[in-house]
Amino acid sequence: MRSLEDYRATFLAHLEDRLSFDEPKNLYEPIQYILGLGGKRLRPILTLMTADIFGGSHKEALDAALAVEVFHNFSLVHDDIMDDAPLRRGKQTVHERWDVNTGILSGDAMLILAYQLFEGYDRDTFPQLAKLFSKTAIEVCEGQQHDVDFETRNDVTIPEYTRMIQYKTAVLVAAAMKMGAIIAKAPEVEAEKVYDFGLNLGLAFQLKDDYLDAFGDPEVFGKQVGGDIIENKKTYLYLKAIELAEAHKVQRLRELFASRPKSSDEKVATAKAIFKESGAAQATLDAIESYTEKAFSTLETIDISDLGRKNLQDFGNWLMNRVV
Amino acid sequence: MRSLEDYRATFLAHLEDRLSFDEPKNLYEPIQYILGLGGKRLRPILTLMTADIFGGSHKEALDAALAVEVFHNFSLVHDDIMDDAPLRRGKQTVHERWDVNTGILSGDAMLILAYQLFEGYDRDTFPQLAKLFSKTAIEVCEGQQHDVDFETRNDVTIPEYTRMIQYKTAVLVAAAMKMGAIIAKAPEVEAEKVYDFGLNLGLAFQLKDDYLDAFGDPEVFGKQVGGDIIENKKTYLYLKAIELAEAHKVQRLRELFASRPKSSDEKVATAKAIFKESGAAQATLDAIESYTEKAFSTLETIDISDLGRKNLQDFGNWLMNRVV
Repeated sequence: MRSLEDYRATFLAHLEDRLSFDEPKNLYEPIQYILGLGGKRLRPILTLMTADIFGGSHKEALDAALAVEVFHNFSLVHDDIMDDAPLRRGKQTVHERWDVNTGILSGDAMLILAYQLFEGYDRDTFPQLAKLFSKTAIEVCEGQQHDVDFETRNDVTIPEYTRMIQYKTAVLVAAAMKMGAIIAKAPEVEAEKVYDFGLNLGLAFQLKDDYLDAFGDPEVFGKQVGGDIIENKKTYLYLKAIELAEAHKVQRLRELFASRPKSSDEKVATAKAIFKESGAAQATLDAIESYTEKAFSTLETIDISDLGRKNLQDFGNWLMNRVV
Repeated sequence: MRSLEDYRATFLAHLEDRLSFDEPKNLYEPIQYILGLGGKRLRPILTLMTADIFGGSHKEALDAALAVEVFHNFSLVHDDIMDDAPLRRGKQTVHERWDVNTGILSGDAMLILAYQLFEGYDRDTFPQLAKLFSKTAIEVCEGQQHDVDFETRNDVTIPEYTRMIQYKTAVLVAAAMKMGAIIAKAPEVEAEKVYDFGLNLGLAFQLKDDYLDAFGDPEVFGKQVGGDIIENKKTYLYLKAIELAEAHKVQRLRELFASRPKSSDEKVATAKAIFKESGAAQATLDAIESYTEKAFSTLETIDISDLGRKNLQDFGNWLMNRVV
């Protein structure tokens, strides 16, 4: 079985190879820029790995893996416009480096290019991939809309939040894996199980993101620790604290998350303290473990080799234990 | 053969039927809003008509026709953001009525929904439709990018302009027709001919739009006559006038199209006078006729019934002679 680094290197070579465009350069340069910014490339690696695990070839899965990554980056480009975010992976966002119109149009082109990447698959595989992709893409849009809607609501529940991150993040991880299974021509029931595995892993992944955003080690985290708190993002940590904390702490938290102080150090420190002492931080870690366990118990039932299973388990453990 | 009104009514009933969504309502209401604003529905009517003409059934073509209309409206929503346009079909644009973020995200969802509308077609038809759609959609993005790029260039040529409107407008008319042929399972060579017919008709259509924008009858035109002149849009009329007018008139036109006077009446009147006396207005009418003739001569070679041919001819003549 190949290592994650092998898969990543193979994927990056394919990305380089496939994403050479001619003109109009104002349309295609931003696409090459955002796709060149890096990132963990988790989703495409999962597509490649899953194809191998089901007895297919990761080489055949490269175009689908790229489609997933192009789509993921499309959603980043448009989300960054909506969030007015200046930076992505430490570099200027597309709409900052060019302008909002370029971000909109290049994003649109990326969504279409993602579909085109399925065109090389055979007549059985192409429709399955395109349909799964559309279903996933519309769910990601719905998740993003829920995320936007939640900003102006004070009564978001944990199940609503969970559904939001399921749509916004987890379904793409799940679809990335199912695509690998489809390309390997795995039975539908097995492909569905690996989707389910990916879905729970994706939920754990996003909750870990929420957790690290507040409690990551500033030395290694890469992003500003406390960014979600500064931006008043009502993550799992916040919603759990609202549920668990004493009344006056809940009141304090609500006030903090309605403010935007110039210096945010105290705000971040106070919020983190409430997350800790209320038990919300631990509850988040418990939820991460619970979704990971759910993923692993599905994994037990999938008809793959022990080596394949071990690889997916290692991947899940690596995701759960990561510090960035 | 059914009348245009029959086709339009059938299409509108299908649109109503298919576009009922649940939530998130902030995602789906703007989609229903823009698709309910009206418009000529030319493209979907062409899909239905072409399916009938090739011996298929327009009923089978309804989903593809809707996909074309949803895509067309997606491009309007995003273009209106880019152009900062307050009105569309005399009503508020989506980003005005909601906000820019809603316009971006609802537009994204429309692009995906368009793809989903092909999913009901059989395993031969679905990939053909999806591939033609992607090719067309990426060309529309490229056309839009060229249009944006042209705003800041003073050396755009007529061939460049023609290619821009071919991509931005004509390819979708062509694809709308070819989809009807694909659904009717017409031979590829005939489907290609009807694409070619649609392409030239689409070019004539856009040039007619350019012409009417300046020379339409204010009583019946519906939009503000001279809008393109006010917006300094370098249309076919402008580019031809730059080519044909005397040097001092060219100079005057360049100055006018670099200005944004508060009261635009004089600017519009002067530009129109130069368009007329330079022969640019007539040259535009000649180009419209030439593309229509080109479409009609392709039409002669298509293997369809005389009645079908006559219907497409009538449609072409109606488009060419329209006053709105």
